[in-house]
Amino acid sequence: MIRFDETHAFLNEEEINSYQAQVTSCHAALMNKSGKGNDYVGWVEWPNTYDKEEFARIKACAERMRAMCDVFVVCGIGGSYLGARAAIEMMKGLYPQDCPEIIFMGNTFSSTYLAQVMNYLQDKEVCVNVISKSGTTTETAVAFRLLKQFMEKKYGEDAAKRIVATTDRTKGTLKELALAKGYETFVIPDDIGGRYSVITPVGLLPIAVAGIDIDALMQGLSSAYHDLNTADLTKNPAYRYAVCRRLLQHAGKDAEMLVSYEPNMSMCAEWWKQLFGESEGKEEKGILPCSATFSTDLHSLGQFIQEGKKVLFETLLLVEQPLVDLVFPKDEENRDAMNYLAGQSLNWVNQMAAQGTLEAHEESGHVPNLIITIPDMSAKTFGYLCYFFFRSCAMTCYLLDINPFNQPGVEVYKKNMFRLLGK
Amino acid sequence: MIRFDETHAFLNEEEINSYQAQVTSCHAALMNKSGKGNDYVGWVEWPNTYDKEEFARIKACAERMRAMCDVFVVCGIGGSYLGARAAIEMMKGLYPQDCPEIIFMGNTFSSTYLAQVMNYLQDKEVCVNVISKSGTTTETAVAFRLLKQFMEKKYGEDAAKRIVATTDRTKGTLKELALAKGYETFVIPDDIGGRYSVITPVGLLPIAVAGIDIDALMQGLSSAYHDLNTADLTKNPAYRYAVCRRLLQHAGKDAEMLVSYEPNMSMCAEWWKQLFGESEGKEEKGILPCSATFSTDLHSLGQFIQEGKKVLFETLLLVEQPLVDLVFPKDEENRDAMNYLAGQSLNWVNQMAAQGTLEAHEESGHVPNLIITIPDMSAKTFGYLCYFFFRSCAMTCYLLDINPFNQPGVEVYKKNMFRLLGK
Repeated sequence: MIRFDETHAFLNEEEINSYQAQVTSCHAALMNKSGKGNDYVGWVEWPNTYDKEEFARIKACAERMRAMCDVFVVCGIGGSYLGARAAIEMMKGLYPQDCPEIIFMGNTFSSTYLAQVMNYLQDKEVCVNVISKSGTTTETAVAFRLLKQFMEKKYGEDAAKRIVATTDRTKGTLKELALAKGYETFVIPDDIGGRYSVITPVGLLPIAVAGIDIDALMQGLSSAYHDLNTADLTKNPAYRYAVCRRLLQHAGKDAEMLVSYEPNMSMCAEWWKQLFGESEGKEEKGILPCSATFSTDLHSLGQFIQEGKKVLFETLLLVEQPLVDLVFPKDEENRDAMNYLAGQSLNWVNQMAAQGTLEAHEESGHVPNLIITIPDMSAKTFGYLCYFFFRSCAMTCYLLDINPFNQPGVEVYKKNMFRLLGK
Repeated sequence: MIRFDETHAFLNEEEINSYQAQVTSCHAALMNKSGKGNDYVGWVEWPNTYDKEEFARIKACAERMRAMCDVFVVCGIGGSYLGARAAIEMMKGLYPQDCPEIIFMGNTFSSTYLAQVMNYLQDKEVCVNVISKSGTTTETAVAFRLLKQFMEKKYGEDAAKRIVATTDRTKGTLKELALAKGYETFVIPDDIGGRYSVITPVGLLPIAVAGIDIDALMQGLSSAYHDLNTADLTKNPAYRYAVCRRLLQHAGKDAEMLVSYEPNMSMCAEWWKQLFGESEGKEEKGILPCSATFSTDLHSLGQFIQEGKKVLFETLLLVEQPLVDLVFPKDEENRDAMNYLAGQSLNWVNQMAAQGTLEAHEESGHVPNLIITIPDMSAKTFGYLCYFFFRSCAMTCYLLDINPFNQPGVEVYKKNMFRLLGK
């Protein structure tokens, strides 16, 4: 379902294979839960172990929400919004017209943003999904207090029917609030961290509200589990990608730019940045994750990539089939001299842009390019892609001897901030 | 109007001052047009030389457009959309409700994006601004052919009144088309490159259509011209920023992350990435430009910045006054335990997040931080900020002995693509 191609990255088979023994041992550590961070590997078997009853309840809840609202507000930060947003934009595009508008809050203290969104919601029918394991994540708690007061003022007692909490199974501020108010709740598993949580209710509820087939998403996840459950580097593209990243950093490339040619994939890149950056960026190690959307950003970052300092490699995330294709129309007058493309599929034009750019960056720019090709932007592919990146990320971190599942550095700013806020 | 602070970047005054002679000579080269790329320095004197008659026509045209449309489509790529989008999002926010919706096209070949936008436009009242110096920029020409056919089908002969072309003064495909069809036209000056063009009709028309005061924008530009027209490093924060960038790259920092705490500033960062990346990324030199919005991305990139490989420095773009502030409300029940913030301005909370993060990244993370502080997100400040960055960018490139105004590397992908497309 996913093709991985490292033949444009100036690597050779021998170098890659030299990692086989290490990969075999890291794979074993992941599977028998003996590696670093082994209390957060619930995602590994999740395609088999997820709660089918809760899954059915997610679908029912999503239908109920869809029937009630113009705007569905997702209130969460980090992994509690990036995955859902990535999926929804990828599959519905940037101008969807057949589902509630999904707005993300709870991920900023900006009063400008908060006030403008609250103002925008005034005359809309609104439902809210608040997502926080503990309920004490400050950005999310700030926004949710505003939303809760808004909902109670607008809907009175019925507000509780329009608010869903995704949180801890039994404890925490948000769980208690939900119980007291009678919100429906879904569970954030204890052994799956935020950046791996898009495959849990955290991601699935908003994705389902957008009208996306989450059964297909789970099928994709399951397919990936079966395809990628081998340590053999000739058979596992996820691990192969993990090894190539290590080799390219050894070769002096400290930044990786994830590139897509589809604007509706740009949030997937943001999600990927959290997954890899937060997993790997420890002990003064790791690759700086960047992203771009081409050909758009060839007219901004293209010059640097082509001729600037050789600090990065590119990972192309290519999509074979667009959500919609268009035939470029003929124009009798042809004043713009574009008739040479008349009758062509615009997706084909986009693919040629990708191919020409690959050549330019590889051959003249000497920039290594890894290529990940996915067939389409369907729910099944999204599920598959998530699991592909999860496996890659775990492996690439284990190869660095890094715990892929914690994020101790994120606490430092919070500690300072709480002091300044007088908490 | 702008404060620059390098005291959190592990630099010392002596190092900075050691650049004074070089800065003085580069400043002279810029002002007397003897430096590299001197045929593209029209922006330097633009605050004094811009065409006042055309400027008045922009305002009139914008009023005409605003009265006619629900959606104003800007069709351009690179500098022909980034500056306008940056300004509009900064000043109007992400959910504006008192102006036509501004949609950007002509910057991608993605059939998914193009088809979905065209579909979205079906039942709207639409005006179009196509922006291309030559008219042959492929992404823009492809989208404009779709738009032109749509407009002619929808409005017949009146379509011409709803289309405005910003293009060369006298020649080129688009100029000829505009003359033949009777579109109103505005001029892209010959001596101002794309990434410096937001201060010309390229940026000003869409910005004015969004209802932003472009007189104030030009006043900001003019103030910056007067404030920053000195080579003295103790008096010119733009040049000081330019020097600090060079010193930090010398110290091994090959990536710069522009950070803001306002989601509506994130497109300003995209615009900045083109300005610096495309100006500086030549001859295997330059700093990789990245960006993030905090505190949002502290929950994705924060871990890497705090504890990952020490490859980057941060440039904080701090805003003192938000567009709207909010007082955090009290909640009698206080189940979320957030009453410790009740009665506080959320902008203050956001500022404390910034201060706590700065401490965390500087003291524990040893990440150099440069700080650019602007008073607000007004049109005047935007104009000032543009000119600040223009001056910084020219200087930082001259200090590297790089031409800041060409982009030879952008042609390589185009050449390959045209071959593959059979042009």
